[in-house]
Amino acid sequence: MLVVKAGGGLDLDPDAIADDLRHQIQAGRRLIFVHGAAEHTNQIATALGHPPEFVVSESGITSRRTDRETLEIFHMVYCGKINKMWVEKLQARGLNAVGLSGMDGRIIQGRRKARIRVRQNGRRMVIRDDWTGSVDTVNPQLLDLLLDNGFLPVISPPALSHDHESINVDGDRMSALLAIHYRADWLVYLSDVPGLLRNYPDEDTLIAAIPRDDIHGFLDVAQGRMKRKVMGAQEALEQGVGKVVFADGRSVKPIRSALDSGAGTHIG
Amino acid sequence: MLVVKAGGGLDLDPDAIADDLRHQIQAGRRLIFVHGAAEHTNQIATALGHPPEFVVSESGITSRRTDRETLEIFHMVYCGKINKMWVEKLQARGLNAVGLSGMDGRIIQGRRKARIRVRQNGRRMVIRDDWTGSVDTVNPQLLDLLLDNGFLPVISPPALSHDHESINVDGDRMSALLAIHYRADWLVYLSDVPGLLRNYPDEDTLIAAIPRDDIHGFLDVAQGRMKRKVMGAQEALEQGVGKVVFADGRSVKPIRSALDSGAGTHIG
Repeated sequence: MLVVKAGGGLDLDPDAIADDLRHQIQAGRRLIFVHGAAEHTNQIATALGHPPEFVVSESGITSRRTDRETLEIFHMVYCGKINKMWVEKLQARGLNAVGLSGMDGRIIQGRRKARIRVRQNGRRMVIRDDWTGSVDTVNPQLLDLLLDNGFLPVISPPALSHDHESINVDGDRMSALLAIHYRADWLVYLSDVPGLLRNYPDEDTLIAAIPRDDIHGFLDVAQGRMKRKVMGAQEALEQGVGKVVFADGRSVKPIRSALDSGAGTHIG
Repeated sequence: MLVVKAGGGLDLDPDAIADDLRHQIQAGRRLIFVHGAAEHTNQIATALGHPPEFVVSESGITSRRTDRETLEIFHMVYCGKINKMWVEKLQARGLNAVGLSGMDGRIIQGRRKARIRVRQNGRRMVIRDDWTGSVDTVNPQLLDLLLDNGFLPVISPPALSHDHESINVDGDRMSALLAIHYRADWLVYLSDVPGLLRNYPDEDTLIAAIPRDDIHGFLDVAQGRMKRKVMGAQEALEQGVGKVVFADGRSVKPIRSALDSGAGTHIG
């Protein structure tokens, strides 16, 4: 099993990624594709007059402030604009893609953080009425049916809370959870950098390989959204995933170069 | 089999409809739910500075002008905002809903009208670069898997063209095509009127029943979007669907009153 996550940056090349997904399927791999849409969501939210806000938790993790209006915009962009873009591109390549959120068929469930403790301008605050959460459960029935019958699952946040609400969850952690459930051989994160950079954004400082047991030491190297990917990688490797790769989603054969030619940062 | 289509008007009561869908499932019915999102799409398109345009074909049918930007907005609202609203409401009621467009799993295919002949200000014109189309094919493999395994399909336009493009198709005709494929006992159209009105919008002129063979004569009675529903009903009844009902999606038990108490307009 191969789990590929394409990030939500604007510079990724969706046609190259879709071509390469076809190549992997034709090579006989079982595959789940997960995608983000963070930057597109920022654009649409701004255009709709409800610009994004980010909050930093007490442990230093940045996440999107998700009031109910933001959650609806999140649905529009993740499940509408971007999910159906991927489905159309994959169908055009002869792959029978099925676009789903984590809510559909209860594929991915998690815990809503109804109260989040944040630091804002140096002050501690509690935010209520927020729809973010963290994933913890894969219900594989629908995915198994799809995979066993030749469909390609194309999955994005949100997930479903245990109280049956939509929750904005991190797509990188969602991908890690899926990779863990299926004991994937590979979990590939495609984003708009060549991999983990020792001195972000200097692309000449790419870290080519990290031994499985050393990953924790790299949490502090990761900047911004890369931090979530490193956390996802750590979880995945601790729980049975073969190898995690951070690779360049802007390149021509992003998955092949990562799997076959050692491009990107290889962990495990 | 029961096919229920909820229209895309702003006055429908989604909680009442979701309650009633649960009632039908609990009563043991096999069910496919289809929804629209026309009015919501108009709102979002306007908010995004790309307001809706409608064109009238030479045969007098009104449809949404769908350039590529409109198609993306259509994806956002139909497959994102509204499809996931329904999925969340149905999951909250214990139904294992799976939201899909016609593209996903190639459920519904059709023909793109790459050139549409329209009348505009009395002049005849040809519009190219348009992504509207008409449905003609159900590929039931995915739907059968879902229905046989206890999932509730929640389906909306777009469909997939035979050339693997997304096409904006009419949700009423899509529902009719699904009802025909499954030889549904009932096809129920819920909208923001009590049924077919002899003098629209006078709700006191509700037509309670139309004999199966007389439906053609009512095409001219139907105004606006109701025309599509009458066309859908006619197709459905000619091809084996038991009964078609136009019922009030604003009422408390919209499906039960239609099926059990004869509310709305009954045809067939």
